[in-house]
Amino acid sequence: MTTTIHVLEKPKLNNPIFIEGLPGIGYVGRNATGYLIEELKAVKFAEVYSDHFPPVVLLEPSKKGLMIPIKNELYYWKAKKKGQSDIILLIGDSQSMDPQGHYEITNKVIELLKTYNVSKLITIGGFATGKMIEKRVCKVYGAASDEEQIKIFEKIGVKFKNTNIGQIIGASGLMIVEGHRQGIPGVCLMGETSGMLLSDPKSTESVIEIISKYLGIKIDMTKLEQRIKEIEKVIKKIEDLQTKIMSGTKDTKSDESLGYIG
Amino acid sequence: MTTTIHVLEKPKLNNPIFIEGLPGIGYVGRNATGYLIEELKAVKFAEVYSDHFPPVVLLEPSKKGLMIPIKNELYYWKAKKKGQSDIILLIGDSQSMDPQGHYEITNKVIELLKTYNVSKLITIGGFATGKMIEKRVCKVYGAASDEEQIKIFEKIGVKFKNTNIGQIIGASGLMIVEGHRQGIPGVCLMGETSGMLLSDPKSTESVIEIISKYLGIKIDMTKLEQRIKEIEKVIKKIEDLQTKIMSGTKDTKSDESLGYIG
Amino acid sequence: MTTTIHVLEKPKLNNPIFIEGLPGIGYVGRNATGYLIEELKAVKFAEVYSDHFPPVVLLEPSKKGLMIPIKNELYYWKAKKKGQSDIILLIGDSQSMDPQGHYEITNKVIELLKTYNVSKLITIGGFATGKMIEKRVCKVYGAASDEEQIKIFEKIGVKFKNTNIGQIIGASGLMIVEGHRQGIPGVCLMGETSGMLLSDPKSTESVIEIISKYLGIKIDMTKLEQRIKEIEKVIKKIEDLQTKIMSGTKDTKSDESLGYIG
Amino acid sequence: MTTTIHVLEKPKLNNPIFIEGLPGIGYVGRNATGYLIEELKAVKFAEVYSDHFPPVVLLEPSKKGLMIPIKNELYYWKAKKKGQSDIILLIGDSQSMDPQGHYEITNKVIELLKTYNVSKLITIGGFATGKMIEKRVCKVYGAASDEEQIKIFEKIGVKFKNTNIGQIIGASGLMIVEGHRQGIPGVCLMGETSGMLLSDPKSTESVIEIISKYLGIKIDMTKLEQRIKEIEKVIKKIEDLQTKIMSGTKDTKSDESLGYIG
Repeated sequence: MTTTIHVLEKPKLNNPIFIEGLPGIGYVGRNATGYLIEELKAVKFAEVYSDHFPPVVLLEPSKKGLMIPIKNELYYWKAKKKGQSDIILLIGDSQSMDPQGHYEITNKVIELLKTYNVSKLITIGGFATGKMIEKRVCKVYGAASDEEQIKIFEKIGVKFKNTNIGQIIGASGLMIVEGHRQGIPGVCLMGETSGMLLSDPKSTESVIEIISKYLGIKIDMTKLEQRIKEIEKVIKKIEDLQTKIMSGTKDTKSDESLGYIG
Repeated sequence: MTTTIHVLEKPKLNNPIFIEGLPGIGYVGRNATGYLIEELKAVKFAEVYSDHFPPVVLLEPSKKGLMIPIKNELYYWKAKKKGQSDIILLIGDSQSMDPQGHYEITNKVIELLKTYNVSKLITIGGFATGKMIEKRVCKVYGAASDEEQIKIFEKIGVKFKNTNIGQIIGASGLMIVEGHRQGIPGVCLMGETSGMLLSDPKSTESVIEIISKYLGIKIDMTKLEQRIKEIEKVIKKIEDLQTKIMSGTKDTKSDESLGYIG
Repeated sequence: MTTTIHVLEKPKLNNPIFIEGLPGIGYVGRNATGYLIEELKAVKFAEVYSDHFPPVVLLEPSKKGLMIPIKNELYYWKAKKKGQSDIILLIGDSQSMDPQGHYEITNKVIELLKTYNVSKLITIGGFATGKMIEKRVCKVYGAASDEEQIKIFEKIGVKFKNTNIGQIIGASGLMIVEGHRQGIPGVCLMGETSGMLLSDPKSTESVIEIISKYLGIKIDMTKLEQRIKEIEKVIKKIEDLQTKIMSGTKDTKSDESLGYIG
Repeated sequence: MTTTIHVLEKPKLNNPIFIEGLPGIGYVGRNATGYLIEELKAVKFAEVYSDHFPPVVLLEPSKKGLMIPIKNELYYWKAKKKGQSDIILLIGDSQSMDPQGHYEITNKVIELLKTYNVSKLITIGGFATGKMIEKRVCKVYGAASDEEQIKIFEKIGVKFKNTNIGQIIGASGLMIVEGHRQGIPGVCLMGETSGMLLSDPKSTESVIEIISKYLGIKIDMTKLEQRIKEIEKVIKKIEDLQTKIMSGTKDTKSDESLGYIG
C-alpha cells in the first residue's frame, strides 16, 4: 500500500457532494476548487500522501525557507441553509507521476468518500481548443456517468453533445467511472481553454459559475477577478520573456530558473 | 492485486473454446472478435479492470457525453446444435500499457477460464508484412502450443511452417504459453496485413473464415463487407489527408485532433 | 518489501542527531558526510539494500578485483564530551533509480531512526547556481521543517529567506518532510555550487563548517583541503580533456571509458 | 510475487558449483553455458518465469510454428569421478527488462541454490574493449566476492588486477554480491570481446577453457570450433549487408526483418 490518507478530523456530513480539482490543462480544476475552498472557508480534514507523487519537496511561496510535502488535501463545508448540500473538496499539488498511480489514488479517495455517503461526484478539468479565446465567458463542456447527470447539467448551461472530446486523462475521468461502478453518479466539467496558458482564469470563472448555480451557493467573484488580473500580468511577463528569447535577447536574469537541488 | 475481474453472470458452459481479440496490428484481433460477438449475439458476463490499462476514460462514440471506462470484456455463446462448442470471447479497448501488466492480466484471465474448463485457446492478431496487399483473401499464419494444434489448423488452411514470424508480442502470445503451462492447448491465428493500415478488414475477414470453419458455425459476412467498405472510406480519407500534409497543404480543419483534457 | 536494512550492530545512542549525505549535485552531501565519517571515526552499524538502486555491482577503486554491492550505509558516533550529541550518519553509492523508490527508502530509514529516538534530521545537498564560483567560501542555503529550525540555523550562518530555491529533489527533501510528519524536526543544508562540477570541495567545506559549528565538534579540515586539491587536479584534467575534444584532438587514450560489462 | 521457479525434478546434489550464463555482451555467458550444458549432457530440473521478462513469446527456430515462452532454465550435472563437483547451470533467453526485476530474479535463484547447498557461484559475461581482437585466445577478466576467489582463479589464468572494469551490469554481478551476503563465495568471469559482435565465439572459448580447468572436466572443443565458424559466417553476412546499406544498395530482401506481430 503506497497511498495513504491521513485523517485529521472526522466531520459529520449529510450525503455530501464531492468536488475535485487537481493540476491539469490551464489549472482550471485546481484554481476553481482552490477559489471555492477560500470563499466557502472550507475546513481541511484529511491529507493524501502517495509514492506515486513526484519525489520532490516544495518550498513555501512565502520564501521563508519552510518545506511543504507534495500531497492532495480534502476539505469539507457544511450547508448553511435549506436546499444546499454539504460539500467535500479535493485539491492538490500533483497528480500521479505514473499511469498505475492514477488508479490507486482514485480508488483510495473513492473508498474514503463512500464512508461519507457521498451523493455525487463533480470533477473539474480544462479542454484545450488550441485557439486563443478572446471572449469573456468560456464554454463549459461536460461528460457524465449517466443520462440523468447530462440532463441536470445541460439545464444549467453545460455542453455535452457533439463535442470533440474523445478521452479524459487522469483523475477527472477515472474518479467518475470508478464512482459510477460503485454506485455514485458523477459529472466531469471542463472549462474551454486555449491550452497555451499555464493558468486560465476566464475558464476557471466559467466553471465556478456553473458549480455555483448547481449548488445554489452564491460565490463572490470579486477576488477571482483580481486574481485573474494578477495571473494575467504573470502570463504577460512570460509572453514578453518568450518574445525576447525568440528574438535572441539574452539580458534577462535567469538565476531563478537555474536553481536545482540534488 | 491491481487487476480484477468483475463477474456479472455465471453461465453454465460445457468445455468452451476461448477466442481472444485485443487491439494490435491492423486491429485484426479486435475487429474479428467484435464481429463474432455481434453476429453470434454473445452475452457479456464479466469485465476486466486493471491499473495496467491507460489512466484514461473514453467518451461514447455516439457523442452524447457519456463516459466509458477502459476495460476488457468477456462474452459467452452457447452451442445451438450438435458438433458445435460453447464459446467464451475476450474483447477490449486496450492491452496493458507496461510489460509486467501483460503477464498479470493474462494470468487473471487464464485463472477465470480454468473455472469454466476451457478446452482450447484461440488468440487473434495481425502479422505485418510491410507491403500493401492487393488480393481479396489474406493468408492466415499460425503459431501453436503443440504439434496437434498445428495439424488441426493446417488442415483448414492456416500456414504454420517456414513463416518469417520470430516473436509474438503481448496477450496473443502470452495467453497461449500460459494456458499450455496450465494444461490448455492453444493456437494464435495471425491475419496477413500490411502494417500500414489502422484497421484491416480484409485480413479480419480471412481470420473469421478460418475460425468459422473450425467452429462449424456459419458467420454471415454481409455486414463485415459493409463495415470493410466504411472503414476503407475512412482509410481513404486518412491517406488523402496524409498526402495533403506531405505536400504542405494546411486547409484541413484540425480542431478535432487538438482536443485534449487534463 | 523490496528495501531492507541489514543491521550489523545495535548501538545504545542518546537522542542522536541524524546527518544524511547521498549522491547529488556537486556530490556535496556525499562528500561532506564521508569526510565527517572519516574524521569522527564513526562506526558502521547497518546497511540499506534496495531493488530501487541500479542493478549494478561496483569494483573496488583499489583495482584488486573485488566486487562491492550498491548500498547505503548507516554509521554512528558517540558524544565525547558534554554539550555534544550522539550522531547517526547515512551515506551511500546511489539514491533510488525510480520515483517511487525514493519514498520507500526514506520511509524505511525514518522507521529505523525512530527506534533510536533521533532528535533532529540534517540532510545535505547542493544548490546549483549555474555560475562558476570563484570565492573560497560558498554560501549555505537552508530549508526547514519548522520556524524553530530556521531560527537555530540562521544564527550560525545558513541563508533561508528569499532564496531562489523552489523545490528539493530526492532524499534530502523527502526525509525532512517525512520526519516532520512523524514528529522529528529537520533541516536541509545546501551548499552553493555551480552545478558544472562533478564534485565541489569548496561547497563541501562550507557545509561541514556549518555542521561543525552546530554540533560543537571541531573537525580538522586539513585533509579536506588536500582532497580538495586532488579533486581540483582531476577537474583540471577533465577540463583539459574537454577542450581537446572540442577542438577535435583525438590522441587521448580512451580505453578506460569504453569498458562495459553485460 | 511475480517471479516463480517451476521445479520439474529435485535432484540430490553434493555441494554443487553454480554456473550462470544469460544474454549479455557478445553472448559470451549464454553461449559458454549453452555449450557446457550440451557437452556435459546436463539435465533440466527447473524453469524460471517472471513478469520482468519481455511480454513476448518466441517461435521455435525450427520454423515449425511452435511457441516457446521466455524463461530461464536450471540444469544439473553429477560428478563422474573423484575430484569433480556436481554442477548447477542457469541459462536463458532474457534478463529482466526493468532494473527492479534483476534484484527479484537474482534473489529467487539464490534462494533455490541455497536449498542445494551450493558451494560456489561462477557467473559469465563479456567485457567490451571497443577494439576488434585478432588473436585466437582472448583474455578472461575476473571480479570476485573475496580475496580467496581471486587467488584461486588467478592461478588458472584469470586477470583480476588493474583492469579497467568499473562496474558489472545485471545478473552476473548481482548474483555474486547477493550470494556473498548469504555466505556463498563467487566469481564473475568476463571474456574479452570487442563489443561490436552480436556473438563472440573466441571469447566464449577462452572462458570455457578457464572453467574446464577449474572444474577438472575435459570439454571437447571440436563442436565449438564448428559453431564458431558458422557464427563467423553469419557475422560476415551482417558486415556485408551493413556495407551495402552504407553504400546505398537496396536490393536486399528485407521481408524477414519486417515481420511484427500485435
